[in-house]
Amino acid sequence: MDDRSLTRLLDGVAAGTVTPDDALRELRRLPFADLGYARIDHHRRIRQGIAEAVYAPGKTAEQCAGIVVELLDSPDGATPVVLTRAHDTQIAAALAAAPGGRVVGSTVVWRAAPTRPGSVLVATAGTADLSAAQECIAVLAANGVAARTLTDVGVAGLHRLLASLDALEGIDVAVVVAGMEGALATVVGGLVEVPVVAVPTSVGYGAALEGVTALLAMLSSCAAGVTVVGIDNGFGAACAALRVLQTVHRTGPPS
Amino acid sequence: MDDRSLTRLLDGVAAGTVTPDDALRELRRLPFADLGYARIDHHRRIRQGIAEAVYAPGKTAEQCAGIVVELLDSPDGATPVVLTRAHDTQIAAALAAAPGGRVVGSTVVWRAAPTRPGSVLVATAGTADLSAAQECIAVLAANGVAARTLTDVGVAGLHRLLASLDALEGIDVAVVVAGMEGALATVVGGLVEVPVVAVPTSVGYGAALEGVTALLAMLSSCAAGVTVVGIDNGFGAACAALRVLQTVHRTGPPS
Amino acid sequence: MDDRSLTRLLDGVAAGTVTPDDALRELRRLPFADLGYARIDHHRRIRQGIAEAVYAPGKTAEQCAGIVVELLDSPDGATPVVLTRAHDTQIAAALAAAPGGRVVGSTVVWRAAPTRPGSVLVATAGTADLSAAQECIAVLAANGVAARTLTDVGVAGLHRLLASLDALEGIDVAVVVAGMEGALATVVGGLVEVPVVAVPTSVGYGAALEGVTALLAMLSSCAAGVTVVGIDNGFGAACAALRVLQTVHRTGPPS
Amino acid sequence: MDDRSLTRLLDGVAAGTVTPDDALRELRRLPFADLGYARIDHHRRIRQGIAEAVYAPGKTAEQCAGIVVELLDSPDGATPVVLTRAHDTQIAAALAAAPGGRVVGSTVVWRAAPTRPGSVLVATAGTADLSAAQECIAVLAANGVAARTLTDVGVAGLHRLLASLDALEGIDVAVVVAGMEGALATVVGGLVEVPVVAVPTSVGYGAALEGVTALLAMLSSCAAGVTVVGIDNGFGAACAALRVLQTVHRTGPPS
Amino acid sequence: MDDRSLTRLLDGVAAGTVTPDDALRELRRLPFADLGYARIDHHRRIRQGIAEAVYAPGKTAEQCAGIVVELLDSPDGATPVVLTRAHDTQIAAALAAAPGGRVVGSTVVWRAAPTRPGSVLVATAGTADLSAAQECIAVLAANGVAARTLTDVGVAGLHRLLASLDALEGIDVAVVVAGMEGALATVVGGLVEVPVVAVPTSVGYGAALEGVTALLAMLSSCAAGVTVVGIDNGFGAACAALRVLQTVHRTGPPS
Amino acid sequence: MDDRSLTRLLDGVAAGTVTPDDALRELRRLPFADLGYARIDHHRRIRQGIAEAVYAPGKTAEQCAGIVVELLDSPDGATPVVLTRAHDTQIAAALAAAPGGRVVGSTVVWRAAPTRPGSVLVATAGTADLSAAQECIAVLAANGVAARTLTDVGVAGLHRLLASLDALEGIDVAVVVAGMEGALATVVGGLVEVPVVAVPTSVGYGAALEGVTALLAMLSSCAAGVTVVGIDNGFGAACAALRVLQTVHRTGPPS
Amino acid sequence: MDDRSLTRLLDGVAAGTVTPDDALRELRRLPFADLGYARIDHHRRIRQGIAEAVYAPGKTAEQCAGIVVELLDSPDGATPVVLTRAHDTQIAAALAAAPGGRVVGSTVVWRAAPTRPGSVLVATAGTADLSAAQECIAVLAANGVAARTLTDVGVAGLHRLLASLDALEGIDVAVVVAGMEGALATVVGGLVEVPVVAVPTSVGYGAALEGVTALLAMLSSCAAGVTVVGIDNGFGAACAALRVLQTVHRTGPPS
Amino acid sequence: MDDRSLTRLLDGVAAGTVTPDDALRELRRLPFADLGYARIDHHRRIRQGIAEAVYAPGKTAEQCAGIVVELLDSPDGATPVVLTRAHDTQIAAALAAAPGGRVVGSTVVWRAAPTRPGSVLVATAGTADLSAAQECIAVLAANGVAARTLTDVGVAGLHRLLASLDALEGIDVAVVVAGMEGALATVVGGLVEVPVVAVPTSVGYGAALEGVTALLAMLSSCAAGVTVVGIDNGFGAACAALRVLQTVHRTGPPS
Repeated sequence: MDDRSLTRLLDGVAAGTVTPDDALRELRRLPFADLGYARIDHHRRIRQGIAEAVYAPGKTAEQCAGIVVELLDSPDGATPVVLTRAHDTQIAAALAAAPGGRVVGSTVVWRAAPTRPGSVLVATAGTADLSAAQECIAVLAANGVAARTLTDVGVAGLHRLLASLDALEGIDVAVVVAGMEGALATVVGGLVEVPVVAVPTSVGYGAALEGVTALLAMLSSCAAGVTVVGIDNGFGAACAALRVLQTVHRTGPPS
Repeated sequence: MDDRSLTRLLDGVAAGTVTPDDALRELRRLPFADLGYARIDHHRRIRQGIAEAVYAPGKTAEQCAGIVVELLDSPDGATPVVLTRAHDTQIAAALAAAPGGRVVGSTVVWRAAPTRPGSVLVATAGTADLSAAQECIAVLAANGVAARTLTDVGVAGLHRLLASLDALEGIDVAVVVAGMEGALATVVGGLVEVPVVAVPTSVGYGAALEGVTALLAMLSSCAAGVTVVGIDNGFGAACAALRVLQTVHRTGPPS
Repeated sequence: MDDRSLTRLLDGVAAGTVTPDDALRELRRLPFADLGYARIDHHRRIRQGIAEAVYAPGKTAEQCAGIVVELLDSPDGATPVVLTRAHDTQIAAALAAAPGGRVVGSTVVWRAAPTRPGSVLVATAGTADLSAAQECIAVLAANGVAARTLTDVGVAGLHRLLASLDALEGIDVAVVVAGMEGALATVVGGLVEVPVVAVPTSVGYGAALEGVTALLAMLSSCAAGVTVVGIDNGFGAACAALRVLQTVHRTGPPS
Repeated sequence: MDDRSLTRLLDGVAAGTVTPDDALRELRRLPFADLGYARIDHHRRIRQGIAEAVYAPGKTAEQCAGIVVELLDSPDGATPVVLTRAHDTQIAAALAAAPGGRVVGSTVVWRAAPTRPGSVLVATAGTADLSAAQECIAVLAANGVAARTLTDVGVAGLHRLLASLDALEGIDVAVVVAGMEGALATVVGGLVEVPVVAVPTSVGYGAALEGVTALLAMLSSCAAGVTVVGIDNGFGAACAALRVLQTVHRTGPPS
Repeated sequence: MDDRSLTRLLDGVAAGTVTPDDALRELRRLPFADLGYARIDHHRRIRQGIAEAVYAPGKTAEQCAGIVVELLDSPDGATPVVLTRAHDTQIAAALAAAPGGRVVGSTVVWRAAPTRPGSVLVATAGTADLSAAQECIAVLAANGVAARTLTDVGVAGLHRLLASLDALEGIDVAVVVAGMEGALATVVGGLVEVPVVAVPTSVGYGAALEGVTALLAMLSSCAAGVTVVGIDNGFGAACAALRVLQTVHRTGPPS
Repeated sequence: MDDRSLTRLLDGVAAGTVTPDDALRELRRLPFADLGYARIDHHRRIRQGIAEAVYAPGKTAEQCAGIVVELLDSPDGATPVVLTRAHDTQIAAALAAAPGGRVVGSTVVWRAAPTRPGSVLVATAGTADLSAAQECIAVLAANGVAARTLTDVGVAGLHRLLASLDALEGIDVAVVVAGMEGALATVVGGLVEVPVVAVPTSVGYGAALEGVTALLAMLSSCAAGVTVVGIDNGFGAACAALRVLQTVHRTGPPS
Repeated sequence: MDDRSLTRLLDGVAAGTVTPDDALRELRRLPFADLGYARIDHHRRIRQGIAEAVYAPGKTAEQCAGIVVELLDSPDGATPVVLTRAHDTQIAAALAAAPGGRVVGSTVVWRAAPTRPGSVLVATAGTADLSAAQECIAVLAANGVAARTLTDVGVAGLHRLLASLDALEGIDVAVVVAGMEGALATVVGGLVEVPVVAVPTSVGYGAALEGVTALLAMLSSCAAGVTVVGIDNGFGAACAALRVLQTVHRTGPPS
Repeated sequence: MDDRSLTRLLDGVAAGTVTPDDALRELRRLPFADLGYARIDHHRRIRQGIAEAVYAPGKTAEQCAGIVVELLDSPDGATPVVLTRAHDTQIAAALAAAPGGRVVGSTVVWRAAPTRPGSVLVATAGTADLSAAQECIAVLAANGVAARTLTDVGVAGLHRLLASLDALEGIDVAVVVAGMEGALATVVGGLVEVPVVAVPTSVGYGAALEGVTALLAMLSSCAAGVTVVGIDNGFGAACAALRVLQTVHRTGPPS
C-alpha cells in the first residue's frame, strides 16, 4: 500500500489501462485469505520478513490445521510456517492435514527457510528455562538462522559464565532466557555491545510470581539498552532477533 | 520471665522472704517505662542484644525527643540509642533535649557502643543506594561494629566486583544493598559461604516499582540461602547482621 | 580464582614449571561438568559450604536422574546430594539411577553429611505449614544438622508458644514457618537474639494471596532484624541457617 | 419506610384522614435536606444510631461549613456532628460558621452526645499508629462512649502486652490499630472473646505498601472472627464498635 | 493466666500447700494436648467462647481424624467440634474415627451446642454465594445459633431486598455474603444499626479477581462501620457474629 | 414501584376499593418468585428490556434446571431465557428439564425473541477471541438482534481492518473483542462515531495477565468515549448493546 | 478515506480531470494540521461527532494555547473546542491566546455547540465526586447537551435515591459517578433500561486504592450491561454518552 | 580480560619480561577510577560502544559534578558524557564544574560524538510523550546519531500515521514512545520489518497506572518481535537502538 504501487495504479487509471472499478477492487484486494474464522496474512513475510506463525491456544485442532494448510498453499511457496504453543491434539491434527512438519516441544515447523547468515546466541540461566529457549531456537531455525546456545550459566555460579566468555564474542544478537530473579540479562548486557533481548520465564515459585519478578527485574536492568519481551515468549524473542538481522541485511555491505 | 527467675521468685515466696503480693507485683513489673504515648523497652538490649531504636515517622518532634531522653536515662547507662528516619525538625528537637548525638543522614546515634569484633561487609550496587547503606552502617557502628564497605559494584560492570573479590574474604556477614533489578545479591550470594542479607532499595523508576522489583528479585534469587529485609531497610539489615554476630559470640570458643 | 592461586599459577609460569598455554588452560578449566542440558558445579560445596541441590520442576525425569548421578560421581565423594520439589516420576527415575536416597515429602537426600554441631530451631504456626518445614529439616539433615522443632504454636493461641519458651533458648538460628498473616515470625523475633529466618507459606486462602500476605507481613515485621526467604522456600531457609553455622564455624574458637 | 409507617399512612388514606395526594407527598418527603451539592441525612442517627459525619476530602471549605451548619440545625437538636479528615482551612471555615467544635487532630466534634455505657478498648501497636486511634476515640466520644486505651503494645515486645492483660478484661469491643505487619490483631483476637475490629494503618514503608500489608495480614488472621475495616479508618472502627453497643443496648436487659 | 489464678497459686505457695516445683509445673501446664503434629487447645472455648475448629487444608486425612478425636475427648465433654474446608477423603476419615458428625458442604459438625438466644441474619447476593453462606450457617449452628437467611437479594434487583426489609428488623448481627462488586454490604449497612459483617466471595470472573474486588469494595464501603472478613470466609464471619453475641450475653441484663 | 402505580393504589384505598391490608400486600407483592435458593425476577425484562440470564457457575445442575424452568413458566410467556457459562452437566440437566434450548458454546437460549431492528457489529482481534464473541452474539440473538461480525482484524496486520472499513458503516453499536494488548478497541473507536463497547479477553499469556492487560489498555484508550466491560464478558457487552438499542427504540421516531 | 471519495477521485483520474499526481497528493492530504509538536485533527468532529479536546497534562502552557488557537482557526468555524485537566498556568495562557473560553474547574470550553436534543443524567454518589461529574457535564455542554443531575445519592442512604426515581425516567443515557465501592452504578443499572456509563472516581483512601476499587467493582457489577470508563474520566463518560446520542440521531425517525 | 590479553600477559611472565607480581597487579588493575562514592567505568564505551551515563537521582549535586568531571578526564578524551534525569541544582553544579554541556530537558550532554551513519525513527503517540522521546533523542545525539521523528501519531486518529508511512521506510530501528494504552507500538510493529523498541510512558491517569498499563500492553503486543524497555526510559531505548547500530557496524561490509 506504499506510494509507488498507488502511483502505478493511478497511472494505469489515467492511461485507461485500468478502469476505476478495477482500481477500487485492487485497492480493496488485500493480501490475505479469509477462512471465516481467520484471515491469513500471506504478505506478512514480505512486510515483516518473518513468516506468520499460528498461535494455537484458543483455536480448535481443526482451525489450527486449516490455517496451516492455507499458509502452506500460499502463492510464494517457500515461506516457512510455524505452529506455536500447540498441544498434542492440535499438533496431531495439523500434521495429519499437513505432513512433514518438524516438532520441537510445542512448536511445529514446516518448510524451514534455507540457512542464512546471522549469529544469534541463546543463553539460559537454568535447565528449567530450556523450554522457552527451545521455542526461540525453533523459530529462528524456521527462518533460516542456526542459533548458538549457552546453557545453565545462571549468575549464582558466576564462573560458569566467565568460563564461556568466548561464546559472547562475534554475535549479532544475544537472547537471554532466565526465570527467578533474571539477573543473567544484566550480566550479559554488561558484557556485550550488541542487542540483548531478555526473555523472562515462569520458572520459580512463590515470589517469582510466575515470571512477573523476572520480567520486572529485566525491565529495571542497570545494563543500559537491554530490551524485554513477554514472559516465556521465546517466539517473540526469535522475531526480535530476526528483526535485527533484517536491519543488518538491508543496510548490507556498501559496494 | 524465664523459668529460672520464676523459680527464684516462687522459692522466695515459699521461703517467706517474698510475700505473695510482692511476687505478683514483681511479675507485673515489666521492664519498660510508660510515657503515655510510648512504652520504653529498657530490657530489649538484654533480650535481643540490640538497643531499641526510635523510628521517627509518625511521631511528633516532642515525642522523638522524649523517648530518646527516656532511653538515655535507662538504668544500664551504656546502652546505645538510635533515632532513625528522622527529618530535620525531629533531629533538632532530639539533639536539643539530648545533646551529643552523631547525625548520619536521617539517623542519629547517642552513646555508641565500644567497638567489638565482627566483620560485616556492606556492598552497594550504585551510588544512589548509599543512603540505605549509610543507615545500615550507622546502626552497626552504634552497636560497636565497624563495617567494611564496597561501593558501586553493580553487576552491569562485572569487572568492578571481580576486582574486589578480596573484600569478600574473611567476613562474617554480607549486606548487599541494591535497587533496580537487585542482581548484585545473587552474584555475591554465589561467591561467599556466609549469611547474605539483601536490602532492596527504591532506587530506579517505572518498572522498578519503588523497590518492589528488587525485593521480588532478591526473594527469588537463585543463590541459595540469601535472605531479604524490607525495602530501604538498612536498619533491619544491620540488626540481622548483629543477630549473626550474637550467635557467633554466644556459641563462642569451646574451652 | 582467588589471588593466591593466581599468584601460584603465575609463579609457576615465571619459574618455567608451567607453560603459558597450560596456565591459560588451567585458568579456563573451571570446576563444573557440562552435561549439555546442565553444568554441574562440583565445587559449590567448597565455595558455599552447601551441596548443590537439584531443583526438579521444569526438568525431565531423565535430567533429574542424570544430574543426581553426576553429582554422586563427584571427585570429593562424600558430598551430600539433594533433589527438591520432585514429583513421583522424577523421584522414581532418580532412585532407579541412584539407589539409596532417602525420601522426605518431595525431597530426596543421598549421602547425608555426618552430624555436626549447630542448633537450629524450626518453628511452625500450624499443622498445614509442616510441608515447607519438612523440606527445611530434610535439607538441614542432608548437611549434617539435626533441627529442633516446635510445631503448631501460632500466636492466636499465645499460651502454646509461651509454654515452649525453653525451646527458644540456646539456639543458633530460628527458622519460623508460617502462612496466613505470618505473625509468629514477629513474636519469635522479639523473643530471641539470634538470627530469625522467616518462611512465608502458601497456607490460607482468599486474602492470604497464596503466601504473598505472609511474605509482606514478615518483611514488614516490627521485630528488628528478621529476614525473609521466598514463599514455601524451606530449602532456602535451610541454606540461610547453614550460612550462619558456617560463619560460627569459620570464626571458630580463638586459641 | 418500614411497614408500620406504611400501614399507618394507608390506614389514614382509608379513613379519609389523609388524601392520596398527601400520602404520596408523605412517601416522597424523605428525611434529608438538599443543599444542592449535598443531601443531608437528618434521620441517619435514628436509622443507624450514629450521627452522619462529614468526610472533608474533596469538599471545599465552604461546603464543609455549610453541611455542618445544616446538620446542627437538624430538628432533633441534640445530635452530635462530626467533621473528619479535614485540613486546616476546612476546619477554620467550619468553626467560623459553627463555633464550639472540639478539634482532635483532623477531626472536629460539635455537640458530643452525653456519656453512655459501653466499654471499648482501643489498642495500638506503636506510637505512630496514634493518629488513626485518635480519630476512632474522637468519634466514639462524639457518640458518648469513653474509650479505654492501651498504647504501644506491639508484639515484638510481647511482655508489654502481657503486662496489660487486665486491660482486656470486661470490655465490650476491642479496636486494634496497627501498621507494618499488623500482628497485634491476631494476638488480641486470641485473648478475648468479644468482637475485635482491626484497623490497618499506613505506618511503615517499603513492603508495608502503605497499609496494604497490614490489611491483608489482618484479613488472614488465624484468630477466628477478627473483622477488619479500611486502612487508617479510625472512623469506621468507631462506627463498628458503636454498632455492637447498639446491639447490646437494643437486646437490653430482659425484664 | 490471669491475676486471680496467679494470686491463688502464689497464696498456696506462701501457705505451704503448694510447693514451688508444683507451682512451676502448674504454670507450665498449659491447657492443650500435644499430638506431635498439632497442639489441641482445649480451653479456647473458655477463652474465646468458640470451639476450636479444625481447618482441613494441608492436613492429611489421618491428622484431621486424629485432631477431631482428641477434641471430642476433651474434659469438658459438651464442646462442639467443627471440621472446615474438608474434602471427601478427609471427611470420610474423620467420620470413620468419630461417627455422628453432621456434614454440610465441606463442613462437619460434631456435638452441636444446644440452641441459645441470639438473632443472626445471613444475607446472600446470589445463589452462587450460597456455599460461603452455608459454612457460616453451619458454624453458627454448631455453636447453638440458628441463623435467619435471606437469599438472592443482590442490589441489581433492588425490589427483592426492599420486599424483605422485615427480615432486617430485630436482628443482633447481619452477615452479608456477596461476590462480584459486593454492593449488598453497603446497602444493608445503610439500613440497619447493628453490626454488619461482610463476607466477600470469589464468585464472578475476570475483573472480580477471585473475590479481591468484592473484598476491596466492602472495605471501602460508604456505609459507616461495616467490617469485613477474608474472601469466602464464612467460618470467620460466624465467629465474628458469635463474638457479638458473647458481648451481648456477658453484658447481660442489669439486675 | 413508580409514582403512577403508587397513586393508583392509594386512590383505590381512598375510594374504598382497596383495603389498607390489600394495599400493603400489593406493595409487598414484588415481581419475583422465590425458589428458596433463588429469587426469579420475572419483571426484569420490563424494567431493563433484557431477559434475566442464569449465570451457571457456583450453581448445581439442579439449581440451573430449576431456575430455567421457572423462568420459562413466567406469566409473559414469550420472554427469552439464557443460561450462560454452563458446563456440560449443567447444560444437560437444563435441557432435560426444559427441552428446546439452543446451545452455543457454554450458552443455551430458550425461546429467542423475534428479530428486531438494530445493527450491532461484533469485531474480534484474533481467532482465539471467538468464544467471548460467540457469547455476545448468542445473547444478542436471544434478544432478537442479529449481529454483524468482523473476525481476526487485529491491528498488527492493519490492512485486514482497513480492507473492512465498510463493515463499520451504518452500525448502531460496535462491540470490540480483543485480548493481549487490546489495541483494536482504540483503532475502531477512532473510526466510528457510535458507541464502542470493548470486551477484554483472557487470550494471551504471561504479561497479558489473563486479560488484565487488555482491560487496563481499553480503559486507558486514547479514543474518547470507548467504554469497557469485564474480562471475557461477552454477555455484558451484549446487554450494553441492547441498552443502546433500547434508547434508540424508546426515543424512536417522532410522529 | 471511504469508498465513495476514493471512487470519486479515481473517476476524476479516469476522466482526466484529475492527474495521477494530484490524486496522490489528495490521498496524502489528510485532514490535520501539523504544528510540529502536535497534529491537529480538524476532521475528527466529522468522523466521531465530537470535537477534539486538548488534554493538558504533559503539555507546556504554550503548546496548550497553540493547539487551542489552531483548533479555533479550523475551516468549519463552529466546532466547539475543549481544554481538559488544565492547571492555572495553562488556562491563563490559553485564555490569553484565545479569549472567551468558559472555565469550569480544570476544563475550558470555547464556542460551545448550540443545544441539541438528548437527555443525559449525571448521578453522583457523594459531594466529593462532583469534580469528575463537572468535567462530564462541561464536555456535554460544549457539545450542546444539557445534562440533568442527581447529586449525593450514594446507596448507604438508599432513600435518597428512592426519593429521586423520577429523575431516572425518560433519559437516554445515565452516567454514574462514584468512588469508594462504587455501588451506585449497580443500583442504577438495575433500575433503568438505557445505557449506564460508570465513572469510578479516586474518592476514598486506603483500600479504595485511588479509584481502582471502584473501577473493579463497576466492571464486576451484577447489573447486566453496565459499561465503565477510566478512573475520574468524566471526559470519557461524556464522549460515551455523546456516542449514544449520535446513534439515536443517525438512526433517527423513519419517515 | 579476554583470552588474548591474558595470553599476552602470561607470555610476558614466561619470557621474564613481566614479573609475577606485576602480572597480578595488572590483572587487578581494572579499567575504572574509584571516587569513593562511585567507580567510574572508563572502558565501558569500548566494551559496550556507549558512553557511561550518569543517572542523577539519589546523587548529590556534588557527586553528579564529580563524576562528570572524572569522565571528561578519561584517557580517551573524545568520549561523550551524558547526565540524565538531573534536576536544576544538579545541572547547575555539573555545568559549573564542567562548562560546555548542552541541556535538553533533564539531560545534559558534553562532548557529543561526531555524527555517524544509522537511521533511527522516534515516533510518539501524543504531545505529552515528548519528554521521554527527547531523552531518547538527546542520548542518540550524544552518541552521534541524528534521529528522525514522527510526532503525535496515536492510533485513535489512524490517518495521521497512515499519512506518514514514508517515515517508516529506510530506517534501521524504530523507537515507539506511547502512554495510555500504548497501541502505537503494535501498529508500527506490524508495518516495519526492523527492530521496534517500545517505550511505555507514564502519560495518562487512573487506569493508566502511571505507565504500567502501556508497559503490559506493549509486552503483550500481537506484533511479533516488538521489545520493550522500562517506563519513561528514553535513555534505555536510545541504548537499545545504539546496540542495533553497533551490530550493523561490526558486521559491516564484507570485503
